[in-house]
Amino acid sequence: MKKPVGVITRPAGFAASGASAGIKTTPGVPDVAVLACETGASGAAVFTTNKVCAAPVKVSREHLLKSRGQVRAVVVNSGNANACTGKRGMRDARTMAALTGRLLDVPPESVLVASTGVIGQPLPMDRVETGIRRATETLSRDRKGGRRFARGIMTTDRFPKEAEASFTVSGKRVRLAGVVKGAGMIAPNMATMLAFVTTDARVTPSVLRRLLLRGVARSFNRITVDGHMSTNDTCVALASGASGVRVKSGRSGEKFAQALDEVLLRLALQIVRDGEGAVRVAEVQVKGARTDVEAELAARAIADSPLVKTALFGADPNWGRIVSAAGACGCAFTEEKTSLRIGRHLIYSSGRPRPASKAVMNAMKRERVTFLLDLGIGRGSSVVYTCDIGYDYVRLNAEYHT
Amino acid sequence: MKKPVGVITRPAGFAASGASAGIKTTPGVPDVAVLACETGASGAAVFTTNKVCAAPVKVSREHLLKSRGQVRAVVVNSGNANACTGKRGMRDARTMAALTGRLLDVPPESVLVASTGVIGQPLPMDRVETGIRRATETLSRDRKGGRRFARGIMTTDRFPKEAEASFTVSGKRVRLAGVVKGAGMIAPNMATMLAFVTTDARVTPSVLRRLLLRGVARSFNRITVDGHMSTNDTCVALASGASGVRVKSGRSGEKFAQALDEVLLRLALQIVRDGEGAVRVAEVQVKGARTDVEAELAARAIADSPLVKTALFGADPNWGRIVSAAGACGCAFTEEKTSLRIGRHLIYSSGRPRPASKAVMNAMKRERVTFLLDLGIGRGSSVVYTCDIGYDYVRLNAEYHT
Repeated sequence: MKKPVGVITRPAGFAASGASAGIKTTPGVPDVAVLACETGASGAAVFTTNKVCAAPVKVSREHLLKSRGQVRAVVVNSGNANACTGKRGMRDARTMAALTGRLLDVPPESVLVASTGVIGQPLPMDRVETGIRRATETLSRDRKGGRRFARGIMTTDRFPKEAEASFTVSGKRVRLAGVVKGAGMIAPNMATMLAFVTTDARVTPSVLRRLLLRGVARSFNRITVDGHMSTNDTCVALASGASGVRVKSGRSGEKFAQALDEVLLRLALQIVRDGEGAVRVAEVQVKGARTDVEAELAARAIADSPLVKTALFGADPNWGRIVSAAGACGCAFTEEKTSLRIGRHLIYSSGRPRPASKAVMNAMKRERVTFLLDLGIGRGSSVVYTCDIGYDYVRLNAEYHT
Repeated sequence: MKKPVGVITRPAGFAASGASAGIKTTPGVPDVAVLACETGASGAAVFTTNKVCAAPVKVSREHLLKSRGQVRAVVVNSGNANACTGKRGMRDARTMAALTGRLLDVPPESVLVASTGVIGQPLPMDRVETGIRRATETLSRDRKGGRRFARGIMTTDRFPKEAEASFTVSGKRVRLAGVVKGAGMIAPNMATMLAFVTTDARVTPSVLRRLLLRGVARSFNRITVDGHMSTNDTCVALASGASGVRVKSGRSGEKFAQALDEVLLRLALQIVRDGEGAVRVAEVQVKGARTDVEAELAARAIADSPLVKTALFGADPNWGRIVSAAGACGCAFTEEKTSLRIGRHLIYSSGRPRPASKAVMNAMKRERVTFLLDLGIGRGSSVVYTCDIGYDYVRLNAEYHT
């Protein structure tokens, strides 16, 4: 297990912590984490669209509305998702925010809540409360705090996932940092995705929300491990303004958007790489579709096909599975106009396969593979990232017991 | 390996055969099969809707149109799908029909063609032609012919799949029989679905087509092994009329439709049971949806979820994966109105799980499991049949090499 770097507290204005409260079964493992912004931050978030959605998601949505995006802290627990827990779950999520608010002396609605872990079981609130007390007492602005936070949100992750970026405007440096947990969107029992991004840019909640939505659409919404969406998925962005650089439109806005996109995509790709038991990531590019929507339909059909994913595991350049997944997905498609490249190597065109060279076989064996399907019809394009399905995927998901 | 019963020739008017031509790599295995109707039959067929579609599918479509549904024979080869083979593939499929027609002294357009096996490789036509000659020479009306036919169409099937049904109208017996090959719709490399149904009812091609479409919608289109549609999928029905019983509307039509549905569903369920490496079949029933379409959307989301399929393999009553697959699929959904039963046992209701009893654990271990999800909103319902994904699925599909 790699040690987290602790990047989340690098942008100015943030403090973080993590504590072990005994929610997870392994003793001593951190399972409560707090991220705070003393001066108050602009906050924006994107949540799961699953209609089965956990209490913390409902409470965080409420709080963002009530506080008009003025966020002072985020409290997270791992080991229990507080999902499918009825009214008691709602009460518990509210208690988590209220207690954190009281301890930090900020309004409860300025605190967001996130949970991840088993579903359908009530939170052990005495332990959670002890954890929150410990975490708020040890909040720290240095990397140590960031590291404890990164560890406190993890569940089945094989490695911590962090990314950062920075840019300068008129000689002033703006920092962004992000941490994510999740080994695929493979909820609901283990692997919710929780992402937290901090920045010291000065940006309004509404601009932050617009840029976050755009960035998530290009990153977390482009990855697929098994096409299953969690009840708890949450991506929060907080902007402290401590850099003094105002981000709105024009040059600073562009630079900020670019840096945010970069952080989100790097976090997203680490999730695919950690996709349960995965050994290989494929970037599925589709171009030449009638529209972008049709290109995405085809890219997702390929990325979610268990046949394509098992071929990826076996490092087999299986052009037939890729092309026929697209052919069946409903997009405009003409066999004769379609071509497929694996890496740079043409493997299918004019309705027929090309001999698979040694170079193609080698390209398939890399940790990262690119499939480029050109439908030869229009200008629509899309890209989706996926991973293989191997024996470990089956083991992890079949041997898990409710 | 079970021995086929050879039911396909039981309805009067049909003769069948199979021969070994060396198309498959294993020597001595039958790989060419012919089904003939001396007096001519009404024919109808349903083909793959994949836009990557094999030459024999294109030729059979053409022949059905040209002959106005007057079919004299079907010629099949296994071991090579004649898909993604360009112009040469079209020429080869036409040659298969023409040679069979010449040998049986019937017009080429009264012959349908089907192929299954590897894709992207030209047919070894000398061998195919030898096989067709051998098969037509040994056509037989008894079960032996039916058995050779059943064996000649198989590829990765672990067992032969046959079903029959009969009914009487005014004391006259009408027989229906069917044979299918395929271990899931898991094409394109191995497991195309080819289905052939014979009957001695007297029925026009247009009525037969209507009933076949309806029956396929309720059977083959309700099963999913990995959501992948083959380039070669074909379901042919032939009605010889030899029973003298005319089927049109009213009582005889109803009885016939019912018997046809029964044969098709029994064949379809055998495919799911044989889903590559599968140990367990799940019947996913959804009711209480806003519409039938939304019910089907939810049923398919559950049936195609790799998480649900691995839980099925592990015999885990994982209500969370089932309910959240439905919650994310886009259908109208309210957590509090939703309930889930595994077998007869309530396991989730009012937004919360119920304790999993010993009885539920036992229900999950059976060879056939029923999930009943009631969305509690409207009157829409649907059912989809699926199988588990286990280690053997990964082995079969990852170790296969193009």
